[in-house]
Amino acid sequence: MSKTFDAVDIIRAKRDGGVLSEAQINWVIDAYTHGVVADEQMSALAMAIFLRGMNRQEIAHWTAAMIASGERMDFGSLPRPTSDKHSTGGVGDKITLPLAPLVAAFDVAVPQLSGRGLGHTGGTLDKLESIPGWQAEISNEKIMEMLGTGPGAVICAAGAGLAPADKKLYALRDITSTVDCVPLIASSIMSKKIAEGTGSLVLDVKVGSGAFMKDLEQARELAQTMVDLGKDAGVHTVALLTDMSTPLGKTVGNALEVRESLEVLAGGGPSDVVELTLALAREMLAGAGRPDEDVEAALKDGRAMDRWRQMISDQGGDPDAPLPVAPETHTVTADADGYVHTMDALAVGVASWRLGAGRARKEDPVQAVAGIELHVKPGDQVKRGEPIMTLHTETPERFERALETLENAVTLDTVAPNLASSVILGRLS
Amino acid sequence: MSKTFDAVDIIRAKRDGGVLSEAQINWVIDAYTHGVVADEQMSALAMAIFLRGMNRQEIAHWTAAMIASGERMDFGSLPRPTSDKHSTGGVGDKITLPLAPLVAAFDVAVPQLSGRGLGHTGGTLDKLESIPGWQAEISNEKIMEMLGTGPGAVICAAGAGLAPADKKLYALRDITSTVDCVPLIASSIMSKKIAEGTGSLVLDVKVGSGAFMKDLEQARELAQTMVDLGKDAGVHTVALLTDMSTPLGKTVGNALEVRESLEVLAGGGPSDVVELTLALAREMLAGAGRPDEDVEAALKDGRAMDRWRQMISDQGGDPDAPLPVAPETHTVTADADGYVHTMDALAVGVASWRLGAGRARKEDPVQAVAGIELHVKPGDQVKRGEPIMTLHTETPERFERALETLENAVTLDTVAPNLASSVILGRLS
Repeated sequence: MSKTFDAVDIIRAKRDGGVLSEAQINWVIDAYTHGVVADEQMSALAMAIFLRGMNRQEIAHWTAAMIASGERMDFGSLPRPTSDKHSTGGVGDKITLPLAPLVAAFDVAVPQLSGRGLGHTGGTLDKLESIPGWQAEISNEKIMEMLGTGPGAVICAAGAGLAPADKKLYALRDITSTVDCVPLIASSIMSKKIAEGTGSLVLDVKVGSGAFMKDLEQARELAQTMVDLGKDAGVHTVALLTDMSTPLGKTVGNALEVRESLEVLAGGGPSDVVELTLALAREMLAGAGRPDEDVEAALKDGRAMDRWRQMISDQGGDPDAPLPVAPETHTVTADADGYVHTMDALAVGVASWRLGAGRARKEDPVQAVAGIELHVKPGDQVKRGEPIMTLHTETPERFERALETLENAVTLDTVAPNLASSVILGRLS
Repeated sequence: MSKTFDAVDIIRAKRDGGVLSEAQINWVIDAYTHGVVADEQMSALAMAIFLRGMNRQEIAHWTAAMIASGERMDFGSLPRPTSDKHSTGGVGDKITLPLAPLVAAFDVAVPQLSGRGLGHTGGTLDKLESIPGWQAEISNEKIMEMLGTGPGAVICAAGAGLAPADKKLYALRDITSTVDCVPLIASSIMSKKIAEGTGSLVLDVKVGSGAFMKDLEQARELAQTMVDLGKDAGVHTVALLTDMSTPLGKTVGNALEVRESLEVLAGGGPSDVVELTLALAREMLAGAGRPDEDVEAALKDGRAMDRWRQMISDQGGDPDAPLPVAPETHTVTADADGYVHTMDALAVGVASWRLGAGRARKEDPVQAVAGIELHVKPGDQVKRGEPIMTLHTETPERFERALETLENAVTLDTVAPNLASSVILGRLS
């Protein structure tokens, strides 16, 4: 006879700082998935976990229980090895777009099953949907075909069958202030990635104002927790810690970020985006057993762009169609001569979100054209009156609040700033 | 324009150890009462409060907001002063039954608006409902008549209009392990008592295994918090800290406790019940401006019993009808000669509850006849084979689990125990 538990006892145990057993965790996740444990009980448990923590074993059991709540993908039959990347979310983080076709150019399959963006960091699917005709929802058969014999990369919506407990819990955490908690973030991300069935995984853990993790120590804890979970589940897992105090690249917003990704795929693009794309591609290829590929060449010679075009058209998109452009723009200029010292990622992310690039609730639509174009980045010199950034939107009444948000986002000084040479702050494996 | 808030921000503020403002608390309680703040949000907030606490000001604002969520009674028009008592709940705690008519015998009105019992401590209304014909639900007009010109005491169900936010929150706390938390207990009790409109209030804060508060320090904190809340609201408030490591009196259960209360009203009864009844009566009378009454005499000469009979018949009960008796009993005997050292209140309370005296869910019925009769108390000497306690129920299949619960409830020793001389452990005002 399988033992049953009482949600009240489990909540009390965690509330009082206790360690939950594997059986308790399996029961509570299963019962929550099936509505036996009520939302109000799970939210009390989530808050208790937030404030009391979970040890490594508890997190592993929690993750396994969320995986067990749904189906698992199996890429074992593919002729190519699989490698995936997950970013904890940042402002201007369009890396997946050039990265997936770049890795696929080396015949390593990249299954990027993504969720929708919520809040100020935007979502990969929202970005791609600015390409005319492109469809996020495709069948499992189509995914297997694209990965096996097609372009080798697919970026699409994750099916509802993967870790349904996580989907339910994620929505609950969002309205109960229990989001930014290492055990819950780590188990949420890793349950989806492990259920997705990738053989190798590279985590891009963002640190700084624009990220969940504001400081390096907390980011390192999250990264190590996820790396451990991946290894425990037999997935080759590596994490890079990367800077998110400044937006990545020079665009934030859906169509704007696709445009910049195309520049990277064409061998150009902003140096930070290129640097991170190359570093992640090397890690993904190494994880799949191809450690010494010349990834830079595949950007320069068009191989990555070819995979991109095939990937986009396989999902109904027209890679040659012009991207939509905002009917309304507003340019912010420098109020003095000087060097740009800081450009706050959070402020830029929130401003872009307020311009219409992101959604407040999951039912909200997003504007393909909304966002922010950065004319300068930290370290650049500007003269009074020169453009700093241009705001894009369909709805000009949004400029005011976006500008308020940006009020202290950019700082200038008469001397040049002392900047780090790389966007990559550390690596864990 | 009144400021509105977001539940997510308020939960986060408390989660991170912040202090909630009066405006935030007013908004969240009002929004919760009206369903704008969801149950899952309030349960996350309750858990954050449980683990982070609230300061005296926050608790006062929280209490005031719960009072403001509903109607308030007003006894200002009565010809008699009002005085009320609240117990935090204990095993065998039938004190309200003799106490209310005793105080009323001195022309001080006692409005005992009660809730239903949940869990192992039983409820006053459940006890009185074992009297044939007695009705817990009466109109506000009837309450005013009974208090003003009738017996002067009324024990009835609190109307749904008093502190509805508390009713909603109490049910939520019960299923989310956020019950035993000083700020939430204090504000729950005091919001109801202040809304009820009594001029003076005596709190009986129980300490020990059978009580919410297991140790004296925690009980003192709860008592002081409630006394402060009462004073802040203009209610004369005093608290007694009383022992709940052993059941009060020699009966636990509904009809059994009414029977014992009648013994006290007839001038007899167990010494601990009499002691506490007299002490609380003196406090209630002092709070109503009658400090020097001879309360003991009113038990001996039948004045309290007269008020009881009037109070019971005013609510449809027959004070002369025989109380129901259990068809099934089981007596536990001493397995050795010795002195009774301990008799665990929690074990006896849970056993009585399992025999059918209490309910697990608020919809459950209770058995009037179920409960436990104690033949001895700590300090008494017994011989092997002599009765210790008798279990009563309608449903003999319940004996087994009740007996399991009682396994280590009573300890015997060859030497006499060193017992405290009084059930009263302290007084706060």
